[in-house]
Amino acid sequence: MIVEVIAVGTELLLGQIINSNAAVIGARLADEGFDAHFQVTVGDNLERLTGVIRTAVERADAVILTGGIGPTQDDLTREALSAVTGRPIVRDAEHAESIRERLTRIRGYVAESTLRMADHPQGAETMPNRNGVALGIAMEHRGVWLFAMPGVPAEMTAMLDEQVLPRLRIASGEPAILRSRVLRTWGQGESQIAEALDDLYTSTNPSVAFLVSGAEVRVRISAKARDTSAAETMIAKVDDEVVRRLGPAVFGRDDDTVEAIVVRELADRGWRIGTVEASTLGAVAATLAAADPDRGAFAGGITVPSIAVDDNTDLAARATGLLQRGRSTLDSEVLVVVSEARGDQVGPRSTQTLVVAVATPEGTRTRVVGLLGDRARVREYAHDTALHLVRLAVTGSWWSD
Amino acid sequence: MIVEVIAVGTELLLGQIINSNAAVIGARLADEGFDAHFQVTVGDNLERLTGVIRTAVERADAVILTGGIGPTQDDLTREALSAVTGRPIVRDAEHAESIRERLTRIRGYVAESTLRMADHPQGAETMPNRNGVALGIAMEHRGVWLFAMPGVPAEMTAMLDEQVLPRLRIASGEPAILRSRVLRTWGQGESQIAEALDDLYTSTNPSVAFLVSGAEVRVRISAKARDTSAAETMIAKVDDEVVRRLGPAVFGRDDDTVEAIVVRELADRGWRIGTVEASTLGAVAATLAAADPDRGAFAGGITVPSIAVDDNTDLAARATGLLQRGRSTLDSEVLVVVSEARGDQVGPRSTQTLVVAVATPEGTRTRVVGLLGDRARVREYAHDTALHLVRLAVTGSWWSD
Repeated sequence: MIVEVIAVGTELLLGQIINSNAAVIGARLADEGFDAHFQVTVGDNLERLTGVIRTAVERADAVILTGGIGPTQDDLTREALSAVTGRPIVRDAEHAESIRERLTRIRGYVAESTLRMADHPQGAETMPNRNGVALGIAMEHRGVWLFAMPGVPAEMTAMLDEQVLPRLRIASGEPAILRSRVLRTWGQGESQIAEALDDLYTSTNPSVAFLVSGAEVRVRISAKARDTSAAETMIAKVDDEVVRRLGPAVFGRDDDTVEAIVVRELADRGWRIGTVEASTLGAVAATLAAADPDRGAFAGGITVPSIAVDDNTDLAARATGLLQRGRSTLDSEVLVVVSEARGDQVGPRSTQTLVVAVATPEGTRTRVVGLLGDRARVREYAHDTALHLVRLAVTGSWWSD
Repeated sequence: MIVEVIAVGTELLLGQIINSNAAVIGARLADEGFDAHFQVTVGDNLERLTGVIRTAVERADAVILTGGIGPTQDDLTREALSAVTGRPIVRDAEHAESIRERLTRIRGYVAESTLRMADHPQGAETMPNRNGVALGIAMEHRGVWLFAMPGVPAEMTAMLDEQVLPRLRIASGEPAILRSRVLRTWGQGESQIAEALDDLYTSTNPSVAFLVSGAEVRVRISAKARDTSAAETMIAKVDDEVVRRLGPAVFGRDDDTVEAIVVRELADRGWRIGTVEASTLGAVAATLAAADPDRGAFAGGITVPSIAVDDNTDLAARATGLLQRGRSTLDSEVLVVVSEARGDQVGPRSTQTLVVAVATPEGTRTRVVGLLGDRARVREYAHDTALHLVRLAVTGSWWSD
């Protein structure tokens, strides 16, 4: 099934907004196995918009439009769909009334033009907008599906996942429901994980894919089924199998973050954490502080200039010195130290040796890691590594060195 | 003059890359007063690429392509231009030889296919690629200009500014050279600056525009002229006038950053700076550390959890307490403290009261600022404000409170 994406809005042509919607839709279509040949961006101009929809109808099996369904006079997607399909614009009286009530309640008034967001070509289905007011539109014309969605990314994404993609799946003879779960892993390399899950990648439903993000490898399991519970059952089976093979490398699912886990584990033990960072520029402290708005597990952090390091040989001594510095300044049961070896900082892309030390009431652990990559990537990797080593030290699961 | 932008690459359709090139080109075209009606993205497919170029030639005065001019077999923009214009592909022998020499020197070998980057349709001009290997292509066909540029953003942007836009200006009867300078200001609001420069905005050449970025207001002066020195002279005249009106609010130009100025001013005085941050999560320390890889002006920073603040009334006492904490831990002549009042942290969008204190060997200054906006915006604003107050305190130009 060939799907064409049309982004509507003069602000896109003027470069005032980057067309991230096109990338999101493109990635979702690719995940589902639909083909995309063209993406077109067009301004708020009825004639040109009508033209690009006509062209898309000639060469695609489905057309996804984003933008141009808001309340203002330059929102012209409804009119263009009406012109292409020859169906007059009608108003959904019930939705118009609900817009009137809702906006009057929130703002105290409603402009008459706002009610245009309840308009659609006669005979079209409307699609609910969970994060906004404008209704989406779904209609068939000469055997081609036409979908109109809002341009606001949060509104668009929800409508794409919940309304458009299920309809496309049904139109292409697939089960309507796709569910995904991400298993977050740390501590095994990309190639180790790929090898351990080798045979699982060949399955198409449920499908297994992986993605490297900082120091984490994420395993995504996706299942298509007739209903959500059948899809969840299929996912759970693969989830169990992945955990059986990867063991404690799997530390969380979906939105679980290592920093949220660390804060929770600290709070459960009544411990507080302090940080001393010489290579991550305070990023570990910033992450912990942001993840802990009210549990009081973050005691404070120290950022030390890298230039203060005079030798790069005795990393253990360096870590011990920084731990002592943290102890004398920060009032916490747990301390984490991140430092690189100074001499390694050569060139934009180079090897860096990193030392991470974590002290808890149960003892102090130190690990030395070699990293390769540009400065930003090394910093992200060091940040993730430090948080994971804290997680292992706090939960008592640091493996033997 | 109507200009159509075509982005070439299957990775764009698959959403693996966000099409930021289209936004950059769109913004540049808008700045110059050219019209854009359509932007099209197409995959690495000769027939479809040829088709979209043909369509663009029918409806635009100039067509800008990005992507598809690299060395691999799926780089098809050259072939598509050849098909559209009916001109055979020829090789620029001199450039082919220079590619061969250069890559052999760097990598020790050169694949024969790499030499395709010296190919172009017969009779086309080639455009130099300052940041890469593939030559750009400029050619006229049926009165329409066709430009092919690389897809790599750094290569594309330089070629756009240095090669494509000058040709478009000449084609539309404008002077070929456009130069811009950004005056960076801090300390006056957007509306104050707009008012002070009111009459300058009406000029079209040189033109004056402004842009808010964090706590800075940036004034951009652009001039079109026959050559660079004439453009620079036009800019310098407006620069003088803006400085005459805005005074010391203008702190730098183009790539001057407040952190680079702070580090330089500190190093000139032989001072070092320490930070104590309770609301910016160590961002001020991270910026100073990154701006100071080797001058030793950054002595270290402390990140304090916001939750440690127990009252929000006596901000001066709070600042003094944090200064003392910094003094007892950090070895520096200058200290900056950033803290918010805790009680202000209500809701995602709220007023925040911020206190910034700067201690130098010449005394201590404190300022209380009220900020409005979401958390991220407030943090960015607080970060910028703190750095500017350090600049004023260090240079002895802090105005009277």
